[in-house]
Amino acid sequence: MDHGLWTNYKHMTITPKHAQDSVIRMTELVLPNDTNTFGNLMGGRLMYWMDIAAALACMKHCSAPVVTASVDNISFETPIKLGNVVHIEARVSRAFTTSMEVHMRVWGEDPVQQYRYKSNEAFMTFVALDPNGKSRPVPAIIPDTEEEKKLYDGALRRRQLRLILSGKMKPEDAGELKALFFEKAVK
Amino acid sequence: MDHGLWTNYKHMTITPKHAQDSVIRMTELVLPNDTNTFGNLMGGRLMYWMDIAAALACMKHCSAPVVTASVDNISFETPIKLGNVVHIEARVSRAFTTSMEVHMRVWGEDPVQQYRYKSNEAFMTFVALDPNGKSRPVPAIIPDTEEEKKLYDGALRRRQLRLILSGKMKPEDAGELKALFFEKAVK
Amino acid sequence: MDHGLWTNYKHMTITPKHAQDSVIRMTELVLPNDTNTFGNLMGGRLMYWMDIAAALACMKHCSAPVVTASVDNISFETPIKLGNVVHIEARVSRAFTTSMEVHMRVWGEDPVQQYRYKSNEAFMTFVALDPNGKSRPVPAIIPDTEEEKKLYDGALRRRQLRLILSGKMKPEDAGELKALFFEKAVK
Amino acid sequence: MDHGLWTNYKHMTITPKHAQDSVIRMTELVLPNDTNTFGNLMGGRLMYWMDIAAALACMKHCSAPVVTASVDNISFETPIKLGNVVHIEARVSRAFTTSMEVHMRVWGEDPVQQYRYKSNEAFMTFVALDPNGKSRPVPAIIPDTEEEKKLYDGALRRRQLRLILSGKMKPEDAGELKALFFEKAVK
Amino acid sequence: MDHGLWTNYKHMTITPKHAQDSVIRMTELVLPNDTNTFGNLMGGRLMYWMDIAAALACMKHCSAPVVTASVDNISFETPIKLGNVVHIEARVSRAFTTSMEVHMRVWGEDPVQQYRYKSNEAFMTFVALDPNGKSRPVPAIIPDTEEEKKLYDGALRRRQLRLILSGKMKPEDAGELKALFFEKAVK
Amino acid sequence: MDHGLWTNYKHMTITPKHAQDSVIRMTELVLPNDTNTFGNLMGGRLMYWMDIAAALACMKHCSAPVVTASVDNISFETPIKLGNVVHIEARVSRAFTTSMEVHMRVWGEDPVQQYRYKSNEAFMTFVALDPNGKSRPVPAIIPDTEEEKKLYDGALRRRQLRLILSGKMKPEDAGELKALFFEKAVK
Repeated sequence: MDHGLWTNYKHMTITPKHAQDSVIRMTELVLPNDTNTFGNLMGGRLMYWMDIAAALACMKHCSAPVVTASVDNISFETPIKLGNVVHIEARVSRAFTTSMEVHMRVWGEDPVQQYRYKSNEAFMTFVALDPNGKSRPVPAIIPDTEEEKKLYDGALRRRQLRLILSGKMKPEDAGELKALFFEKAVK
Repeated sequence: MDHGLWTNYKHMTITPKHAQDSVIRMTELVLPNDTNTFGNLMGGRLMYWMDIAAALACMKHCSAPVVTASVDNISFETPIKLGNVVHIEARVSRAFTTSMEVHMRVWGEDPVQQYRYKSNEAFMTFVALDPNGKSRPVPAIIPDTEEEKKLYDGALRRRQLRLILSGKMKPEDAGELKALFFEKAVK
Repeated sequence: MDHGLWTNYKHMTITPKHAQDSVIRMTELVLPNDTNTFGNLMGGRLMYWMDIAAALACMKHCSAPVVTASVDNISFETPIKLGNVVHIEARVSRAFTTSMEVHMRVWGEDPVQQYRYKSNEAFMTFVALDPNGKSRPVPAIIPDTEEEKKLYDGALRRRQLRLILSGKMKPEDAGELKALFFEKAVK
Repeated sequence: MDHGLWTNYKHMTITPKHAQDSVIRMTELVLPNDTNTFGNLMGGRLMYWMDIAAALACMKHCSAPVVTASVDNISFETPIKLGNVVHIEARVSRAFTTSMEVHMRVWGEDPVQQYRYKSNEAFMTFVALDPNGKSRPVPAIIPDTEEEKKLYDGALRRRQLRLILSGKMKPEDAGELKALFFEKAVK
Repeated sequence: MDHGLWTNYKHMTITPKHAQDSVIRMTELVLPNDTNTFGNLMGGRLMYWMDIAAALACMKHCSAPVVTASVDNISFETPIKLGNVVHIEARVSRAFTTSMEVHMRVWGEDPVQQYRYKSNEAFMTFVALDPNGKSRPVPAIIPDTEEEKKLYDGALRRRQLRLILSGKMKPEDAGELKALFFEKAVK
Repeated sequence: MDHGLWTNYKHMTITPKHAQDSVIRMTELVLPNDTNTFGNLMGGRLMYWMDIAAALACMKHCSAPVVTASVDNISFETPIKLGNVVHIEARVSRAFTTSMEVHMRVWGEDPVQQYRYKSNEAFMTFVALDPNGKSRPVPAIIPDTEEEKKLYDGALRRRQLRLILSGKMKPEDAGELKALFFEKAVK
């Protein structure tokens, strides 16, 4: 269907925005129902919070509702204990036409011992929606810090990996990703 | 620390078990608090349920408590609506020394229209724990059906990818995975 | 009110369906907030899950939204422990004009000990609704296995008991039920 | 096992208590997650609240922890709407050696229209536990009002019906219950 | 905007109502997720329940939806334990043009030891809304008992204190409140 | 009881800490179950989150578990809508011997319109506990910014007001507070 003039997004100029303007910081307390029989935060409960933090960062970037498109590999390191605090920092690392990749860092913290430990680092992607529930364009990302630039550059590789893993791209077409296996680490 | 005789797992013989004996089927109804402003199931809520279904499949296989070690790339396809039903089928696809890879299929279903649609397919890995919270050996998996054999064979490649993505293996050492980029699709 | 031609359900032919096509299997993990001070699943929390499983079985059978009409006597046997798993299997046992009786079996399971134990067996009835919230006809049930036939046959007796217990039938009119007190057990 | 002197409950004298001293009044607001797609309170959610109210009435009567033993037939009448209020009044109707029967009345209320409507009436039974999780004796009930006396008298019949329905008594031995089918209504 | 004739509330005569007709009694069980690491009810969870009880008392008084306008100082005394019961009694103490002050008493109770202890006493204010979300007039309160009269009389002082604390009144204009600092206690 | 040497807190030297080192930022999404029938966040739900944020700020300051002692007057201004975001910033404003006063700012935010609005400002006090559940000394606060100094200075007045309102101080002894009624605003 062609909506012509009215939603001709291709000719719209959307002003790019800074990665740091999308940052969301979330803090949650681990309660009994969030834990397994060892008294550790269940992975699924953490992913629930990460999904909300990442969605909020995307909405902050694109000023539109968003839906989760994919989550990348997450490796859970130190378990987070009952009564400890979860800190999630989410930031849009790169925007493609209608989608955004979000980078998240997750720490656990023992509020009494004042000991903070890394839980995991993750990437999720979200798609922006217009009021009819169709995907719509989003502003480009301007990376500023060294780390933001590194995240921005790696986003192409990670995108190709996602497309291959979901069967939407053939491995031999993934030029960016091949570098991964011969030259440098993926993150 | 060497526990000697008592927990010398290396000399234990653990009887392998069939993949199909680990199958868990979970059914959940999407309630208002599980949805975003479009009335669609939030990705994080779905991952919460998937984590529980996968953990139950692993416990069924290894008869021990387990913790989430990692989740692989998940690509969310059709959104699942408020009032619809989520079906999750989880099955251990392969066991390594102390860890298990679980394969999950997720469908949405409109219970009134009797229309069932694919939501996603995913892999998670779990580690079995002994009563002191240390990792412990698990039974090997015997794949029986064609599909179980395919999942079993692909597990090595996916494991190498996980190790590379979490920085624990160098890409050039991932012999199994290389095949992915030159010969066949990853799943 | 007579809606005449448009909703003259009495002349509609609704194709009967097999009992086994309505089966729903639900699996839930007992979390801290589901338990009493002895660490056992609270009866009310179990009934909450049973109600959802039963409603899903009914919707699967009649392809329409349903509401709980009644729950029959439930006797709770072995308590289900924190960290254990609840398995619920729900199946429509018989359909009346606009209502369905659902039979449920509930087991607890210790996922580590691989020990499965019976919790209870129960019957609930549901009414199918049309879009205006009025009751609407549902397909008849075809019982196939021996057990399904037994459940089907007993449904009339249980229905009379329900009508008497809710004051809608006089005991002396319950011909089917009387057999219960002179000839055979109720299930 | 014989605990002799120490827990020889049979020779203990437990002072009977008045039915009205066990009354619990509970008030709950129906929130979105408690409702089905018609915006009506789900039956299972209501049973969850009823179970808690009934347990509290029993604990008030016997000063010991209790567990749900059974729930009798419940017939749900008028549906309770989102945003409406649920009122539950629970009262121990009769005590047997180690168990108590609780009678509950449930109303819905539209807090704006000030319209109160009956939802259902129900009976549940609970067993009192000692610190080892074994059943222990409870005080007898003294009924005072006309209604309390009627509930007290009917408890024997309902108990026989429960025993028959759970297969623990043969119908022909249920002298009290037979009256039901020839002389009077069950409530 | 002037709605003229249609919503000229100032000329409406609204019949005053008795304070005791607004009483709401709420009973809640403290579950694991409601508690901190000491096993005591978290203050925030208690305020959640108090807000609902108070809102219900206001709706009962004014037959209209209400929103929380403010909460007065609350001092939490004895902590309430996991497995204990919370009793909240809420009553409208005085109505102003479009707002109501509610008085609440909160007790904890050990249901096994039958020991009841005071948790706190609090005041909240609510505003009644018309269907457009604008504030609307509410009936005046008729206090009957000695205590209701005392609560009614103190309401003016507490209102001045609220206005000062939220910066809407200058201290020197608070004639009623000054009495507090020279003549008598605030409650 | 005198614990002598072991817990002679009075002679302990506790190093004071900066107010800004206690800051906690919490971000929550308003879901359907958090709202009233107007689709606005319920006051009680907000107080639940504020209590957790404030407790985390206190634990960060004193490195010990804490319990809510009191909440000061809160005036709810603009309602926060379903699907909007709640931002809470909590900071310890002053410490007394064993208690801490926390200052909180709460904003709502429409994540699509990128519109942020003030919801309220509040003070709560918490008490630090030792492992036996007794109150224990906490570090003093060092205010740095102009605003922190103002909050620090006002804390004495607010404390006197709290003591008077809870009946623990006579109004005529509240020297600091009197200034409020003759010289300046309370915040």
